[in-house]
Amino acid sequence: MKIWQKNTDVDKLVEQFTVGQDREMDLLLAKADVLGSLAHTRMLESIGLLEAKELEAVQAELKNIYREIEAGNFSIDQAVEDVHSQVEWLLTQRVGEAGKKIHSGRSRNDQVLVDLKLFFRESIEEIVGLTSGLFGQLLQLSEQHKDKLLPGYTHLQIAMPSSFGLWFGAYAESLVDDMEVMLAAWKVCNKNPLGSAAGYGSSFPLNRTMTTSLLGFGQLNHNVVYAQMGRGKTERILAQAMSSVAATLAKMAMDICLFINQNFGFISFPAELTTGSSIMPHKKNPDVFELVRSRCNKIQALPNEIALMTTNLPSGYHRDLQLLKENLFPAISSLKECLEITSFMLNHIEIKEQILDDAKYSYLFSVEVVNELALQGVPFREAYKQVGESIENGTFKPAMKLNHTHEGSIGNLQNEQIGQMMKEVLGQFKFSEVHAALQDLIK
Amino acid sequence: MKIWQKNTDVDKLVEQFTVGQDREMDLLLAKADVLGSLAHTRMLESIGLLEAKELEAVQAELKNIYREIEAGNFSIDQAVEDVHSQVEWLLTQRVGEAGKKIHSGRSRNDQVLVDLKLFFRESIEEIVGLTSGLFGQLLQLSEQHKDKLLPGYTHLQIAMPSSFGLWFGAYAESLVDDMEVMLAAWKVCNKNPLGSAAGYGSSFPLNRTMTTSLLGFGQLNHNVVYAQMGRGKTERILAQAMSSVAATLAKMAMDICLFINQNFGFISFPAELTTGSSIMPHKKNPDVFELVRSRCNKIQALPNEIALMTTNLPSGYHRDLQLLKENLFPAISSLKECLEITSFMLNHIEIKEQILDDAKYSYLFSVEVVNELALQGVPFREAYKQVGESIENGTFKPAMKLNHTHEGSIGNLQNEQIGQMMKEVLGQFKFSEVHAALQDLIK
Amino acid sequence: MKIWQKNTDVDKLVEQFTVGQDREMDLLLAKADVLGSLAHTRMLESIGLLEAKELEAVQAELKNIYREIEAGNFSIDQAVEDVHSQVEWLLTQRVGEAGKKIHSGRSRNDQVLVDLKLFFRESIEEIVGLTSGLFGQLLQLSEQHKDKLLPGYTHLQIAMPSSFGLWFGAYAESLVDDMEVMLAAWKVCNKNPLGSAAGYGSSFPLNRTMTTSLLGFGQLNHNVVYAQMGRGKTERILAQAMSSVAATLAKMAMDICLFINQNFGFISFPAELTTGSSIMPHKKNPDVFELVRSRCNKIQALPNEIALMTTNLPSGYHRDLQLLKENLFPAISSLKECLEITSFMLNHIEIKEQILDDAKYSYLFSVEVVNELALQGVPFREAYKQVGESIENGTFKPAMKLNHTHEGSIGNLQNEQIGQMMKEVLGQFKFSEVHAALQDLIK
Amino acid sequence: MKIWQKNTDVDKLVEQFTVGQDREMDLLLAKADVLGSLAHTRMLESIGLLEAKELEAVQAELKNIYREIEAGNFSIDQAVEDVHSQVEWLLTQRVGEAGKKIHSGRSRNDQVLVDLKLFFRESIEEIVGLTSGLFGQLLQLSEQHKDKLLPGYTHLQIAMPSSFGLWFGAYAESLVDDMEVMLAAWKVCNKNPLGSAAGYGSSFPLNRTMTTSLLGFGQLNHNVVYAQMGRGKTERILAQAMSSVAATLAKMAMDICLFINQNFGFISFPAELTTGSSIMPHKKNPDVFELVRSRCNKIQALPNEIALMTTNLPSGYHRDLQLLKENLFPAISSLKECLEITSFMLNHIEIKEQILDDAKYSYLFSVEVVNELALQGVPFREAYKQVGESIENGTFKPAMKLNHTHEGSIGNLQNEQIGQMMKEVLGQFKFSEVHAALQDLIK
Repeated sequence: MKIWQKNTDVDKLVEQFTVGQDREMDLLLAKADVLGSLAHTRMLESIGLLEAKELEAVQAELKNIYREIEAGNFSIDQAVEDVHSQVEWLLTQRVGEAGKKIHSGRSRNDQVLVDLKLFFRESIEEIVGLTSGLFGQLLQLSEQHKDKLLPGYTHLQIAMPSSFGLWFGAYAESLVDDMEVMLAAWKVCNKNPLGSAAGYGSSFPLNRTMTTSLLGFGQLNHNVVYAQMGRGKTERILAQAMSSVAATLAKMAMDICLFINQNFGFISFPAELTTGSSIMPHKKNPDVFELVRSRCNKIQALPNEIALMTTNLPSGYHRDLQLLKENLFPAISSLKECLEITSFMLNHIEIKEQILDDAKYSYLFSVEVVNELALQGVPFREAYKQVGESIENGTFKPAMKLNHTHEGSIGNLQNEQIGQMMKEVLGQFKFSEVHAALQDLIK
Repeated sequence: MKIWQKNTDVDKLVEQFTVGQDREMDLLLAKADVLGSLAHTRMLESIGLLEAKELEAVQAELKNIYREIEAGNFSIDQAVEDVHSQVEWLLTQRVGEAGKKIHSGRSRNDQVLVDLKLFFRESIEEIVGLTSGLFGQLLQLSEQHKDKLLPGYTHLQIAMPSSFGLWFGAYAESLVDDMEVMLAAWKVCNKNPLGSAAGYGSSFPLNRTMTTSLLGFGQLNHNVVYAQMGRGKTERILAQAMSSVAATLAKMAMDICLFINQNFGFISFPAELTTGSSIMPHKKNPDVFELVRSRCNKIQALPNEIALMTTNLPSGYHRDLQLLKENLFPAISSLKECLEITSFMLNHIEIKEQILDDAKYSYLFSVEVVNELALQGVPFREAYKQVGESIENGTFKPAMKLNHTHEGSIGNLQNEQIGQMMKEVLGQFKFSEVHAALQDLIK
Repeated sequence: MKIWQKNTDVDKLVEQFTVGQDREMDLLLAKADVLGSLAHTRMLESIGLLEAKELEAVQAELKNIYREIEAGNFSIDQAVEDVHSQVEWLLTQRVGEAGKKIHSGRSRNDQVLVDLKLFFRESIEEIVGLTSGLFGQLLQLSEQHKDKLLPGYTHLQIAMPSSFGLWFGAYAESLVDDMEVMLAAWKVCNKNPLGSAAGYGSSFPLNRTMTTSLLGFGQLNHNVVYAQMGRGKTERILAQAMSSVAATLAKMAMDICLFINQNFGFISFPAELTTGSSIMPHKKNPDVFELVRSRCNKIQALPNEIALMTTNLPSGYHRDLQLLKENLFPAISSLKECLEITSFMLNHIEIKEQILDDAKYSYLFSVEVVNELALQGVPFREAYKQVGESIENGTFKPAMKLNHTHEGSIGNLQNEQIGQMMKEVLGQFKFSEVHAALQDLIK
Repeated sequence: MKIWQKNTDVDKLVEQFTVGQDREMDLLLAKADVLGSLAHTRMLESIGLLEAKELEAVQAELKNIYREIEAGNFSIDQAVEDVHSQVEWLLTQRVGEAGKKIHSGRSRNDQVLVDLKLFFRESIEEIVGLTSGLFGQLLQLSEQHKDKLLPGYTHLQIAMPSSFGLWFGAYAESLVDDMEVMLAAWKVCNKNPLGSAAGYGSSFPLNRTMTTSLLGFGQLNHNVVYAQMGRGKTERILAQAMSSVAATLAKMAMDICLFINQNFGFISFPAELTTGSSIMPHKKNPDVFELVRSRCNKIQALPNEIALMTTNLPSGYHRDLQLLKENLFPAISSLKECLEITSFMLNHIEIKEQILDDAKYSYLFSVEVVNELALQGVPFREAYKQVGESIENGTFKPAMKLNHTHEGSIGNLQNEQIGQMMKEVLGQFKFSEVHAALQDLIK
């Protein structure tokens, strides 16, 4: 059953090739598709394209379908091409002719556009929620371990004293900037494309402002040609925001794989969370973090993949866009899983004490001593030379005490300020407004 | 002259390889480097690491150097490794010992970090300015040509009526979303890394809040490990935002190359803005737009290039990061040039009238007629069938008149609303606050 | 059941995360895994690590398992982690203790390495076979339509006469160069990593030359550290070769989408192979080619994805590599499907006659006339000017006859030479030697 | 002076934008451009489009220009658009009218195509030469240090004994596979596009077989449409081959940065080849290798950049292709420099002795002991368990002696076989045939 089908049958091979993984991917859009239809039909009734009685029947049944989806009792028939057709078919089965009218003033093009925006908006909310949780955990770990020192490296060479307070806090703050990028993706997703039809609007007197409000969108995608042009672009912007979170996780995973290595030996995890070998009991393979790193690097490749699939396509819909679902949907799941497992693992991280007691780290304090001399009035370059010489002739014996007091340093982590900064960013996502609107729509 | 140099001379070949294109790239950072030193030295004096008299001399001379840079009278000596060393060397030549003190509590690492943030902030302002100009022009063209119809394509097949009003307006609105992404990049760039030293802070009692305020930053990069971690990440986020603008320009360029093709023939440009061939006078090669497309596709590849160069590097500074300048700096110039030349070309665009008179476009109106029937009460699917049959048996004669009235459609472009949306985004860039701070610093 | 498992249980969440899609992906490696074990055990027996009687039992049962896999009667239990464990478990169930010995002198690392090489070798053979078929079809179409002219474009502007003979032939020849790249991938895949164990070899006196010969490999991956280093690298090289074929298909698909567009209108396909709309009967949406283009662009993104996932990993195995299966395996299927559907569609391509009769194409012949004058002795630049003027004052009336006779031009397509070139490349894939070895192994 | 220019002047801004960096890039093509003209004119004379006397004058002067280029006495005037125009202009200045005839039967399109192929062919020869040198050095280092043991890592966890013999040899063998890929690029580059004119051939009776032979090409790009289609594709294939070499260098650089880190401490370099800090004398920053890694990762991003700039362009020339020069030409230089500096650095590598004496490496030998028990008849899984228990209860005391004898293992590096394998690959590049042809052409 294909809506655009008339008299000729599309060859089976062609059908199989063109449908691809759509039935599987579209399941994720089912709820969004019903929400779109709930809003669209209320609007249709308001402009006289649906009668009040028809609306009532349609709304009741769409809400039933919504609940069926939520309960896991929804699937796409093999004879049906996509989620839009499936919902329409179910509806028509149950309410008769009125069911067919819900397609008025709409095309599958803007139907999938609005489904995607709704789905992305929900996905962003989930990612933001998990990120916020991990953020809190990192700040808490930073506070908890703020007195445990760690060598700091530059060029991967032992350089300066650092601490676990700094290390955990750095990744927390990294997530703040990631959320700035995610906020841009949210704003782009939170605009309503419904009513753009096949990308050129409709001659029906649609009320797009009404559906915008019903679906809790912050804005319209005003221009209908742009609404269609947003396909691929929205995906790329979301993928870029996801890649930013992924880059933070991948970098932390790389650090962890290095720190758990026996030559570093700064951290550990319980045996049941690593893999090993019975004849190499010293081995604690950090498989989870290797896979977090690998998955997150794969996510980092996603914006480029989307660019390659959409670049140099003229404006207007092309079927190419369908395949973006196959890239982005699994990546959304994967990122959420990476956030979850990272939180899970960090709950069990074990941190070595007194790392800096090892002799090879004594030079870490050379700059401290230079600075102390400088504070006592010795010109910086002079102090520098003096300490250099004492090191060269073996008389360097640093006190190994740290005086870092400035903002963001070992002695003054500013985790509160970082927390405040995150709060301000998160406050700009208008999740509650969305919830309120959608609650109204399905109640 | 290399600051870290002690007794051994680095082999010439190594030096040449490691300096690379830094001297050339660093010229773009010169102004920013002086600004950073102006702020840093005022802060050093406030915590007693520089005497008032020293500060006075240093400030006066740094301002002289700033003016020399602005006047184009600044270069980096072949014997000097980078812009930081050049400025310090000049200063020491002119004010003596005090010049050497300006490096106290600072490392080249946070010096380049702050230079980059200042440079990116200024570059974003320029890109936003040019984008805003192009945006206004596109809206104006949309209004001017709103009555000129154009076939709209789906699957690159003739589908629905569109208009130049829609087409220009779509690209205008696309730039609004691009600016949302650019705003995220701005916020990430508008945080102060100065004081993070080599990535692990300093034992001097630096006042980072003070330099933040002096340099007009909206926030600190609080955590010093994160401040360093921002290198590469900031570049990637900026490149992603640039790639979004670039994608809009590239798509418009693709449309233009198609529309100027003789099989389409929708638009043209004066001969002096295209290239041709004396024996093929019909040829109007749209070289400018082919190159805009190509440059913008290159910019679209940039975030991935940055990712490949930074992925899987553990935290802490690595020399790898130096090369990001060679990627991003020319891309910034290139994007600005693309914005400028696109504006220049669009000033001369010529649009064909009455395009839809051609018989091959008559079916564009089939959906209109279906909708009209539907508005008269015929069920949608029925109307659909009826028109389909009239087309099949050759009796279809559409009126070719359009009734699109809803938001964002041909008859209701909503350019004002789009303009308003852009205004709201642009208002969130705090350029004037930056200007005020920097004016204070160099006055 | 995990081989490396000793006393502690890996947390369920961790297990689920780390196994990922491995069970599904590994099914594709099942045959290869058995082949590897068939060779490995024969070698073990030859060096005294397996007794003759044990070998006999093991070989018989491995061959049974091989046939079960071929018959589709093989799956990986949920309690089992991967294909290697599944095969070993089945074997031990059936032949007892001897089954456990087959892991001697081997690690899962080199086991998966050899499985992948065997699987890639087979995949390359399939891709080469399909490419060769498409190549023949394109040459045949080129011959069949060699007299049908087509405008040739530069800058997407009408430029010179071309023909369907040239157009089909060009894509055929493109596949020849793609096969040169595929040949490199084949050579890299056709080297034996078995015996490298966990990447550092074994203290058993393995005979790697023997397994190389038994598995029909052309060479050893000699150095065991390099054998392991080949993971990720082999995938990237294969993906690059695949991306070359994909780029050819994507470009042809782009041409086809343009040529079937009504403004061009050079080709068509039967209605049942395109999609349309009952009220827009003129629409023949080339969905298949849009999806071929999109899939092939996705494949083009693959080498970069692999690079991002492997770059900056130090030498030695990392779990990151596991995920490359999830990228490459579906891409191999996708490329094969694209080759098949392209062949299927081209079987039904309809080509318009007399395209050049349209007045807008008359200038195509201007260069012809210039050349004719030049052949009559008029200096080239003079002839150029003369024709230019005749066009400008409207007196240009070309004969529309073509004299192209040189190698590779409209009148001399050289399809035979192109066929010969392909034959030479294909001859360098040593598929029959592989078949002979494997036949021996499983007989 | 632009060849296609007629009466209208292209606006200055447009000209500046379109010429871009072409004058700078084209200098690298100058020699190739003259070679192409030397061959083309000899062919023109042979088909009567140039008189014998004209040919003589033109050849003599082209050879002069060739020598001037070689001597560094050639530049492209600001008034001239590209290298092709510059050479033609010089020639016409010196030999008069005959100079103008050399453009007969040729377009700038096939002129730049053949220039690129000749330039790439020469670049490949240089890259292969440098790679071959590095390969020999690595094999020699492998032999020299074959007895120096090193811990081998899996999951970055201490796993098995390895050696510098293995480590150096692995990178040598990696270069062999890289050369397989480079060979494919060579074959694709070694085909003659000259005579394809603007991509649709010429009505002149050109003899393309003759120019193929004169320029030492192994084959023709037969089909003229394909010859043009090779632009972008050739670049991508070459970039892929370069990225393979780059990936090998980047991985080795990553290992080196890790091995020189003080927690590992396996290798070192003389102070003058690293950078440091006078107060941190322990620091030996491996800047060269960080930059090799970074440059090589940038090169790894190149094939994708080319794909993004060429994907979805229909067949036929587009100006977009011009910009590929700006990507690829500097990358070629960069790769050559990376090969050179790596060789230079490895000349000075210092390797620590007795690394494995450190207690943390003792478990490296656990698998050895298991294998020894197995060779004595203990079932593998049993031996495994036994050693595991001895380790757990602290009674494990390995002999730390290695028995690896099989192909490619510590005791049997097979460097000779690896050398032989490289020799076979290198033998397939037909550099000497090219030299012979070109020598004839310019003598």
